[in-house]
Amino acid sequence: MQIVEFTPTRDQYVWTFGGAEPALEVAPGTVLRLWTEDAFAGRVTSREDKPSQVLNPKELNPQTGPFYVTGAEPGDTLALHFVSIEPARDWAASTTIPLFGALTGTDRTATLQAPLPELTWIYQVDAARGTATFVAHESDFTVDLPLAPMLGTVGVAPALREVRTTLVPDYFGGNMDTPELRAGTTVYLGVNVEGALFSVGDGHYRQGEGETCGTALEGAMHVTLIVELIKGGAPAWPRFEHDDALLTVGSARPLEDAWRCSQVEMVRWLADLHGIGEIDAYQLCSQLCLSPLANVVDVNYSAVTKIPTGLLPAVSPYGGMHRRLRAAAATLPDRSG
Amino acid sequence: MQIVEFTPTRDQYVWTFGGAEPALEVAPGTVLRLWTEDAFAGRVTSREDKPSQVLNPKELNPQTGPFYVTGAEPGDTLALHFVSIEPARDWAASTTIPLFGALTGTDRTATLQAPLPELTWIYQVDAARGTATFVAHESDFTVDLPLAPMLGTVGVAPALREVRTTLVPDYFGGNMDTPELRAGTTVYLGVNVEGALFSVGDGHYRQGEGETCGTALEGAMHVTLIVELIKGGAPAWPRFEHDDALLTVGSARPLEDAWRCSQVEMVRWLADLHGIGEIDAYQLCSQLCLSPLANVVDVNYSAVTKIPTGLLPAVSPYGGMHRRLRAAAATLPDRSG
Amino acid sequence: MQIVEFTPTRDQYVWTFGGAEPALEVAPGTVLRLWTEDAFAGRVTSREDKPSQVLNPKELNPQTGPFYVTGAEPGDTLALHFVSIEPARDWAASTTIPLFGALTGTDRTATLQAPLPELTWIYQVDAARGTATFVAHESDFTVDLPLAPMLGTVGVAPALREVRTTLVPDYFGGNMDTPELRAGTTVYLGVNVEGALFSVGDGHYRQGEGETCGTALEGAMHVTLIVELIKGGAPAWPRFEHDDALLTVGSARPLEDAWRCSQVEMVRWLADLHGIGEIDAYQLCSQLCLSPLANVVDVNYSAVTKIPTGLLPAVSPYGGMHRRLRAAAATLPDRSG
Amino acid sequence: MQIVEFTPTRDQYVWTFGGAEPALEVAPGTVLRLWTEDAFAGRVTSREDKPSQVLNPKELNPQTGPFYVTGAEPGDTLALHFVSIEPARDWAASTTIPLFGALTGTDRTATLQAPLPELTWIYQVDAARGTATFVAHESDFTVDLPLAPMLGTVGVAPALREVRTTLVPDYFGGNMDTPELRAGTTVYLGVNVEGALFSVGDGHYRQGEGETCGTALEGAMHVTLIVELIKGGAPAWPRFEHDDALLTVGSARPLEDAWRCSQVEMVRWLADLHGIGEIDAYQLCSQLCLSPLANVVDVNYSAVTKIPTGLLPAVSPYGGMHRRLRAAAATLPDRSG
Repeated sequence: MQIVEFTPTRDQYVWTFGGAEPALEVAPGTVLRLWTEDAFAGRVTSREDKPSQVLNPKELNPQTGPFYVTGAEPGDTLALHFVSIEPARDWAASTTIPLFGALTGTDRTATLQAPLPELTWIYQVDAARGTATFVAHESDFTVDLPLAPMLGTVGVAPALREVRTTLVPDYFGGNMDTPELRAGTTVYLGVNVEGALFSVGDGHYRQGEGETCGTALEGAMHVTLIVELIKGGAPAWPRFEHDDALLTVGSARPLEDAWRCSQVEMVRWLADLHGIGEIDAYQLCSQLCLSPLANVVDVNYSAVTKIPTGLLPAVSPYGGMHRRLRAAAATLPDRSG
Repeated sequence: MQIVEFTPTRDQYVWTFGGAEPALEVAPGTVLRLWTEDAFAGRVTSREDKPSQVLNPKELNPQTGPFYVTGAEPGDTLALHFVSIEPARDWAASTTIPLFGALTGTDRTATLQAPLPELTWIYQVDAARGTATFVAHESDFTVDLPLAPMLGTVGVAPALREVRTTLVPDYFGGNMDTPELRAGTTVYLGVNVEGALFSVGDGHYRQGEGETCGTALEGAMHVTLIVELIKGGAPAWPRFEHDDALLTVGSARPLEDAWRCSQVEMVRWLADLHGIGEIDAYQLCSQLCLSPLANVVDVNYSAVTKIPTGLLPAVSPYGGMHRRLRAAAATLPDRSG
Repeated sequence: MQIVEFTPTRDQYVWTFGGAEPALEVAPGTVLRLWTEDAFAGRVTSREDKPSQVLNPKELNPQTGPFYVTGAEPGDTLALHFVSIEPARDWAASTTIPLFGALTGTDRTATLQAPLPELTWIYQVDAARGTATFVAHESDFTVDLPLAPMLGTVGVAPALREVRTTLVPDYFGGNMDTPELRAGTTVYLGVNVEGALFSVGDGHYRQGEGETCGTALEGAMHVTLIVELIKGGAPAWPRFEHDDALLTVGSARPLEDAWRCSQVEMVRWLADLHGIGEIDAYQLCSQLCLSPLANVVDVNYSAVTKIPTGLLPAVSPYGGMHRRLRAAAATLPDRSG
Repeated sequence: MQIVEFTPTRDQYVWTFGGAEPALEVAPGTVLRLWTEDAFAGRVTSREDKPSQVLNPKELNPQTGPFYVTGAEPGDTLALHFVSIEPARDWAASTTIPLFGALTGTDRTATLQAPLPELTWIYQVDAARGTATFVAHESDFTVDLPLAPMLGTVGVAPALREVRTTLVPDYFGGNMDTPELRAGTTVYLGVNVEGALFSVGDGHYRQGEGETCGTALEGAMHVTLIVELIKGGAPAWPRFEHDDALLTVGSARPLEDAWRCSQVEMVRWLADLHGIGEIDAYQLCSQLCLSPLANVVDVNYSAVTKIPTGLLPAVSPYGGMHRRLRAAAATLPDRSG
């Protein structure tokens, strides 16, 4: 496998899905070793930082990419297998941003109330112990939280000639913010434009389901992934595969619609994989699925449907793509190597 | 501990929270051994049954109760510890009901489309192996699913003189339909009327998160629970405690509001338990919580916020009530005994 | 026509739909001359009153009734023609109530922000000029607003053995809060229990569409209405008739579902009245309807679909009921008479 | 005033806000005489046309423009006064499109039900009588409806480097689909990019509020408008001015959020215009506003808040801009001239 390394310079960050020139062209089968900046574009660094003062609203959630995948055409399925997602710093930042988050009025859920206090928490990371330390603002409480690195954002260029901010997830992926996107995950995305033009970013050293306050433990990441292409078969919404689960992600408002999108996608996937009727798949999904929320803070919310594969007969989605990529990943030298 | 057994006769089923005469008065500390009928009131028994023909819309989701708790007053907190929840039959039923469920228009999400096909699945239970067998309608597919017994419904009489159908969950509990309500769970509910008047029902031998098609593996249950009372301290929304987690349940529409209710309840609970400020608790909840959906089919949807307690310093909610009831449960003879 | 007068004493106010003993039995054809207290139960009387201090949360939105209609059975249609709705006081009150209203977080749209300021506006009424005077709190601005009296609440007892607070509208009517319920309106409600058990209240001397801040110009009213009964034909959602329009009202959350309920109800009403197919009625409704919001503040929101009847061939809903009641109303002596 | 005429050729249609080269540069004060194609891009012409067969999903809702306004900078306010909006054909088309519309499941409100029947209605226009004729599909019913021409779409390029489909309204205007955008309206839009880059299209010969089935009486239009620019003062959401009303339009999901956006915008506008506090403006808006829905079918729904200006002291928004443009419009020769 060809291994390509890419670390964007600051002026190479991209802020949209679609609309940016490719950073690189990569052939299916390529391994990418990437570095991603945090969602604050690195501008929040201290407990005293006020987001409204230090952030640039036009430069949020920078992505590494986009990558033009040789041979990818509309209707194809891009497969991205995440080999590793590792913190690239020994600290992470989280904030409350005025009128952003789930437990506050926002620009859409518009109210007349005063915003919540604007605060920054800096988490020191102890890589050896695998922890990040929470230090309270309003008392002397402190606690070590386990690291659980993930990527908030992965997506391709949208259809209909659109260029979309990296802040809002949709059918093309984007800022889904689910802890299910971690090392070991294969992501399947429908291709909308030639070359697919995918990018990744928004590393979280840890995040709760829903990302309530609007930000996770935001931090730069080292990301290793393998790029593959499946001709045709584009799913309507992003699909994930773990060693032990199939997942689908819907993004919309209200939240029930995000979840409905993921559910219909899963019902159809199950029907297809197991050769059963749609109503039988509806019944099975109803009894088997887990439904962990992803984000309830972005302009589209994201919800996940997850089926533990051990509960059903063994199947090989996309011709065993995940298993094959998992095996290939195991043969890679580690990053330091 | 006093152990009281109660199996309602058919004419003793109750269909509302509030508005029914108490079945029994029970003192705090009492152990109740109960039997609950399934949500169909036992009317769906065969794969050929059509819900629209066999169900009585006025007799859905029968409850066992209500129980008048000696000394319970508005503002108090009722604690119910579920010692065991065990299938009382060797089969369960699930159905699609016309214009009910998450992936169809409904009486509220009103559309002009024709309803989905109306089908019944009967699951045979193998108690020894702990499985229930799915048999497809549209093919010869079949699979054994693990049993995971739970109660869909537990609640108290509402406030404001209301009498509410057992079909719709709200701040008083009710038809929350979360798999998190299983053996080993302690449920905390705010008391709204003298005696609390709680009831339980709606056994599910297994259910996915969201209960997509509107029904789970519905079946009669043997339920053992211990009743306790805490003076004052009524939570705004139902709280649960597991050995390894704290949970809150919100019920509303749209789904984000159900989840917001559970989140605010959890933020306040964490702030109280750990002696930290509300904004620090907001930050902690954002990074730690799991958010498994409960139901997305009832007139109010239900969403859960769940904090794994192992991630935070040890605390003893309600003076260690759960631990104490767990220990008491361990001393009980089993049902057959 | 028999004319019956009824003014409840304070201890006769009712706070629920269902669950209250009838105040009177009335035969179809009866004229009722009623008095209704304001939604604050008369407790807000001065600009200095703080709702959180003077209101009793268990005594909000008192209704006058319920009235048992002779011969009314489940499945029938109750027709109430509002002959006149006239302010019974020379002042009205409006307030902001903490965590209630459309432009604030609420108990359902739960947030962590501080509530908005809690204020009371007292409007002096000049009956001769037909105005009520707004006086600002934060400046010396003042303006006379035209009176436009209406009733916020009219409903019948619900189905499924329920007893429901008068605060929340639903399929049985209730606190719909639409300015379309004014003198000259005939309201059609499906009967759920024997005798229908309807009540009315919540007079507004004027209200914007949506009732943004949660309260209108709340005031006691003199109400004259004629009661009629149509055997069978119960609508799924409340229907109104004006001299020049047909209207339907849906109540649910999110707001689009409230509106969808009213739209499906109207599509079916149009199909029935004009003998056209449902899809043709869908098309016609799409091009003809007005959609004025009613309330976006209660636990269910209410939305109206309104078809100006002049745009379609003349029809006589319910056998010309509205026209007949309108004519009967014209023969009544005025209240003072 | 300079009068510029522009009729796009088919290859000049634009399908996005942002991302297209300007058709023309126009100085503030310019009068534009435009022609706009219908939202089907002219592809639906007969009662036998099936939308799923004749429509090109990549070529929906073509716009005429974009126009680069000399001197317009981010933060400025673009004022567009619509002098006339006149049908350019003697027929219009409306359709039901599979899984699009308010009374059906959609790609977002995803369900498993079969779509509604796919039908096309062709309305013949009688310009002299001012009517368009509805002819039923399922019976021989027919009725003449009054013409009420309006534009469904007007918008500027979005912020954050985005390019957005013309199908979805948002803060930058776009496919709002409100009958309030008619001849005589001045539209105020915040400028996000240099030159503003506005475009217009989506003529409706008539539309109900909500556009229930997803399409109106779609038809090509002759549009005359005057372009003006106000330095600074960009509103957060589109504002409209009629001779007798001020209006704001919010676009979001769920529908209550669309409406909340329009309400907060109006509360702030009223506070500013009348020099009153925000809470007093909240109270006034609550009692005075009309809330006619716009669209409940697009990926963002649109809701309008409308204040009849006759109810409040006279004010001159934007320095009397609307009155001035109204007067200027009166001096224009008519189109044929």
